[in-house]
Amino acid sequence: MTAIHAALLAAILSIVTVFFLSLSIMRKQQGNELMVKVSKAIQEGAQIFLRREYTIVGFVVIVIMIAFTLFGYFFDIGINWKTAISFFIGTTVSALAGYLAMWVGTRANSRTAAAAMTGLRPALEVSFSSGAVTGLSIVGIGLLGFVIVYVLFKGNPLNITGYAMGASLLALFARAGGGIFTKAADMGADLVGKVEQGIPEDDPRNAAVIADNVGDNVGDIAGLGADLLESYVESIIACIAIGISFTFIGSKLVDLPLFIAAFGIVASILGVLMVKILPVKSPQNSLNLGVYTSAAIMIIGSFLIVKFLNISFSEGSRMYGGLGPFWAILSGLITGLVIGLVSEFFSSEKFWIVKKLAESAQTGPAIVVVNGLSIGMQSTVFPVLAISGALLVSFYFSGMYGVALAALGMLSILGITLSVDSYGPVVDNAGGIAEMAKLEPQVRSITDKLDAVGNTTAAIGKGFAIGSAAFAALGLITAFIVTISNIKGEFILNLEDPKLIAGLLIGGMIPFLFSSMLASAVAKLSFRIVNEVRRQFKEIKGLMEGKAEADATRCVDIATKGAINNMIVPGIFAIVVPVLIGFTLGPVSLAGFLMGALITGFMLGIYTANAGAALDNAKKYIEDGHFGGKNSPAHKAAVIGDTVGDPLKDTVGPSINILIKLMSVISLVLAPVFARLN
Amino acid sequence: MTAIHAALLAAILSIVTVFFLSLSIMRKQQGNELMVKVSKAIQEGAQIFLRREYTIVGFVVIVIMIAFTLFGYFFDIGINWKTAISFFIGTTVSALAGYLAMWVGTRANSRTAAAAMTGLRPALEVSFSSGAVTGLSIVGIGLLGFVIVYVLFKGNPLNITGYAMGASLLALFARAGGGIFTKAADMGADLVGKVEQGIPEDDPRNAAVIADNVGDNVGDIAGLGADLLESYVESIIACIAIGISFTFIGSKLVDLPLFIAAFGIVASILGVLMVKILPVKSPQNSLNLGVYTSAAIMIIGSFLIVKFLNISFSEGSRMYGGLGPFWAILSGLITGLVIGLVSEFFSSEKFWIVKKLAESAQTGPAIVVVNGLSIGMQSTVFPVLAISGALLVSFYFSGMYGVALAALGMLSILGITLSVDSYGPVVDNAGGIAEMAKLEPQVRSITDKLDAVGNTTAAIGKGFAIGSAAFAALGLITAFIVTISNIKGEFILNLEDPKLIAGLLIGGMIPFLFSSMLASAVAKLSFRIVNEVRRQFKEIKGLMEGKAEADATRCVDIATKGAINNMIVPGIFAIVVPVLIGFTLGPVSLAGFLMGALITGFMLGIYTANAGAALDNAKKYIEDGHFGGKNSPAHKAAVIGDTVGDPLKDTVGPSINILIKLMSVISLVLAPVFARLN
Repeated sequence: MTAIHAALLAAILSIVTVFFLSLSIMRKQQGNELMVKVSKAIQEGAQIFLRREYTIVGFVVIVIMIAFTLFGYFFDIGINWKTAISFFIGTTVSALAGYLAMWVGTRANSRTAAAAMTGLRPALEVSFSSGAVTGLSIVGIGLLGFVIVYVLFKGNPLNITGYAMGASLLALFARAGGGIFTKAADMGADLVGKVEQGIPEDDPRNAAVIADNVGDNVGDIAGLGADLLESYVESIIACIAIGISFTFIGSKLVDLPLFIAAFGIVASILGVLMVKILPVKSPQNSLNLGVYTSAAIMIIGSFLIVKFLNISFSEGSRMYGGLGPFWAILSGLITGLVIGLVSEFFSSEKFWIVKKLAESAQTGPAIVVVNGLSIGMQSTVFPVLAISGALLVSFYFSGMYGVALAALGMLSILGITLSVDSYGPVVDNAGGIAEMAKLEPQVRSITDKLDAVGNTTAAIGKGFAIGSAAFAALGLITAFIVTISNIKGEFILNLEDPKLIAGLLIGGMIPFLFSSMLASAVAKLSFRIVNEVRRQFKEIKGLMEGKAEADATRCVDIATKGAINNMIVPGIFAIVVPVLIGFTLGPVSLAGFLMGALITGFMLGIYTANAGAALDNAKKYIEDGHFGGKNSPAHKAAVIGDTVGDPLKDTVGPSINILIKLMSVISLVLAPVFARLN
Repeated sequence: MTAIHAALLAAILSIVTVFFLSLSIMRKQQGNELMVKVSKAIQEGAQIFLRREYTIVGFVVIVIMIAFTLFGYFFDIGINWKTAISFFIGTTVSALAGYLAMWVGTRANSRTAAAAMTGLRPALEVSFSSGAVTGLSIVGIGLLGFVIVYVLFKGNPLNITGYAMGASLLALFARAGGGIFTKAADMGADLVGKVEQGIPEDDPRNAAVIADNVGDNVGDIAGLGADLLESYVESIIACIAIGISFTFIGSKLVDLPLFIAAFGIVASILGVLMVKILPVKSPQNSLNLGVYTSAAIMIIGSFLIVKFLNISFSEGSRMYGGLGPFWAILSGLITGLVIGLVSEFFSSEKFWIVKKLAESAQTGPAIVVVNGLSIGMQSTVFPVLAISGALLVSFYFSGMYGVALAALGMLSILGITLSVDSYGPVVDNAGGIAEMAKLEPQVRSITDKLDAVGNTTAAIGKGFAIGSAAFAALGLITAFIVTISNIKGEFILNLEDPKLIAGLLIGGMIPFLFSSMLASAVAKLSFRIVNEVRRQFKEIKGLMEGKAEADATRCVDIATKGAINNMIVPGIFAIVVPVLIGFTLGPVSLAGFLMGALITGFMLGIYTANAGAALDNAKKYIEDGHFGGKNSPAHKAAVIGDTVGDPLKDTVGPSINILIKLMSVISLVLAPVFARLN
């Protein structure tokens, strides 16, 4: 069996599993009429949003495809209609996987709520199945698309990088648009509902609540999926692009990443089965068991694959081979787990950090915000050390190729890790539906229990997404440098070179500017939603008393339009800036630029994700009855803290991941052009 | 006249001017008994703090001196007792200048308040004279110390870099300690006074008010002075260290920076006179006139100096000379002004950005905080572009030497820019004294007018401090690389090298960790002050009614102890980490580490400074009667925003400046050691 066959088979296996999982979800009870109604509203909102988003992005996609094709018509340096097709397939794959995940997610939510009426375990099963649909469809469809492109264009890296760029472009818009949507709706709902009117979360009188639930699906499911799909295909492509620079196509250096990816899917499916079959009581343990099972299988499998392929190759004057690639893969895999654990430590209310943070809320909102930001900053330490360590280890054992392999190692069991991450929003939605459908309190208490676990897995997932983005970007930057060196014969990147330093500085600034765009977009949009909700409370008579219904579609509509309008500028910006730098300052500055963006982007990503999660969980900790509990001054301060953290953790942070990847992959695709500039 | 004579003469001229300025201040009226009493309390608090701070730092200084001396005893690579002596002189000079500035500042405050009873112009004169004492004593004493060290050790760069390290070490402790003190006191005072008790700022019933005023002096005067003194001497030393690598001592490349520094002092004194003599009505215009006069004189002077010296030299294969060095100096000077203007634009209530921010406070504290942070992030764009531009221009015209010259160009007129910056805290104090001594409202209105200008100049000053720190650090990193190359013969810093990348990542993380340490220290300490002020309001009978006095010394004492305890760990940390990286990962990683810290440090510095200033001024704008004015919901939200911004702009941001410089200068001093590691 060749490597490409293995990859194809694994992709199909994954998609078949997704089919059966979806079927099993759709067969479940949907619950009572009200639940179905709420769920329908969420489905419609999410569908409308995604459709509009894809339409807008479609224009950008077409423009870029035309550009590639025209370019190929005038210049013969490898960028042409084939790149355009690859690119198109990349966008399609990402859109498809995102849509599918959202489709199932918005249908699993009421079913999870219904299952929660019968117990914790059934609710976990439905919601986790939905998560697994996301996880396995992302890796399955992502790998399938890659196989198609790879076979179509015979593995020519100049063409297949277009595939990564397509996935990346769509991911950026999905993450930024979805992120703005979800947080503007969430903040808008909270600011009027919890802070001004004093009504609980997910109260149907609040017009923004449906929008908030829609946001969970388009942001946390479709957005996260697109993000990781991108990292996943990029880590495969980076391995191949670097591998090919040493060797001819079809050799073992190209086979290895394909076998690893294929085996990773198998390991992930086994992990998913583990969660579904083993009757572990605690949901957290059950999910952990799935991840660790897959990780263990993956370690054994990659050891055997490396052993079996018996690769040896040279880079510069050094020889690599033996178990070298295995150590590189292992270092990546471990780094992924470490970053996840660190995120959990800094953001879970189980540990003293969040408890202390909650305690400090007693001094008021300013102090809790400062402390929350400070926790986020502090949380960068271990992920940076872990990534740096993996970098040094993987390079030591397998050179530049090893660095790309480490990224792949980290992402190899994405199927299971993503399944675990994306079960959270489903339970969150289920809780909302339980509230809105006025189910019995014990149902809500079951979904709350699952939701608490979901918050932790979400924090871990975010850490994992950032870590893998950094590693994937590193792989892409390396591939960019290798590509330019191969064309120019020599490509000197000296840290003393002011062009490189200027690039580093400008690149380092970009994630700050980008963050600022997104954060202020959320603030602006949430302001509009606040006004709408306030208006409804004022103008709709009997709303507060529960005699009239809130007009939820208006809020969904405002959030949809606002999010889509506000994602365009940062999106275009991310595409244009690296191209501009490449053309004006040249490839040396561009290399520095990408590295600078990676450095600050990685820090900001972890900082915002963990600061936001810590603030969120500090609020939850107080709500559990500590430091005065709900409606105490400490709680009010913590709610403000949470609201500050919201756009940081769910809009800014996740979008930065993609920013650094997208800018790197665009540079890689255009590397043949930049290499020919003087 | 040789260059070193010119420098000596200019330094003495500066110190003589300082003497006469101080005399003129001390001759002014001190005001009534109550004013004298308050001023005394501030003087004592500041004195006690500085004395304790210097005592603690003294221990660190002695340990480092012993280490250098012992090292010289065992190894003969140029680091020895001479380095120790240079280092000691550096610390002494910084301590002396800081103490002098604080001494005059705490005596000018009541005199400014007294002068404000007679009008705006007299108040401006006293406070600006005090600012000029700071400005001119920093450059005068800084340059004098340098001349002494230079003559003592015959310009050997291995020894004179110790001087910069000494100044840097003291600056770090002064900035971090002073910054923690001032903001913990300020936040503590505000949280209880303004938020809980609803009493005005600077109300004497608030026990933390004196501590707050003490903080202005130890943080904003002594701290800022030490910060810029460091940048100033480092930019001179970087020029000389790089210049010497091309040439023998005493040549024109070494003369040029000395002449520029000397002439810069003359230009600054002329600018100071301009402010004092020309009777311009608007204080802002008067100050601007001073700065622009000095800048114009400096441009002409440096043109003539470069023309007259007629330097030509080669670096690598390129020849430089003619007016090249002049363009490098000019690019630095302009960059300094640009960064200042950008800071003003993003943080002054005159412009729409802050007005919009104030408007958004109507939606509540969370939104105003998010928007404030977002403004800070956005404000990084132009400073980065300006610095990158100056870097490329100065390198184009004069190579690596040009980059160091640009830093010096920026700092050449430090005498006047620092005078303008450090007049602010004096007026701020004067306003506080006017309030506490219950002077007539029009006195307070005059000091408020001057204080508003002071806020703007402070923001500009902070921008300038960060910009110059980045440039100075860049000069030091370059000198570090040049030194290692000279010793090793070859020092390859390739961006592809994982050791370099790991260094970049770890370095990039350090400013985040450091910021987190300082921010949480402020939060913790302000919590303690809050409790103390609350306790006094509860336990001291008649305090609220004004019948009993608050115990201000308790708060000063808590702030002093807390600040000193909390500055030790980050201080030691900044010293130890680069040494650790150098020894474990080697010089390649260390170079990456320094550059990574520079990149994120620069961004975080600008981000925190401008976010904090914008939030502060948005609050002021609302207090001026917009969006509901004082005590409106918008105002309450803005006060929370301001309190979040406080530790960012006055503790975190300024300390990062020094962090990146200190780590760079330590690496430069120890470069001969690292170069000999394998």
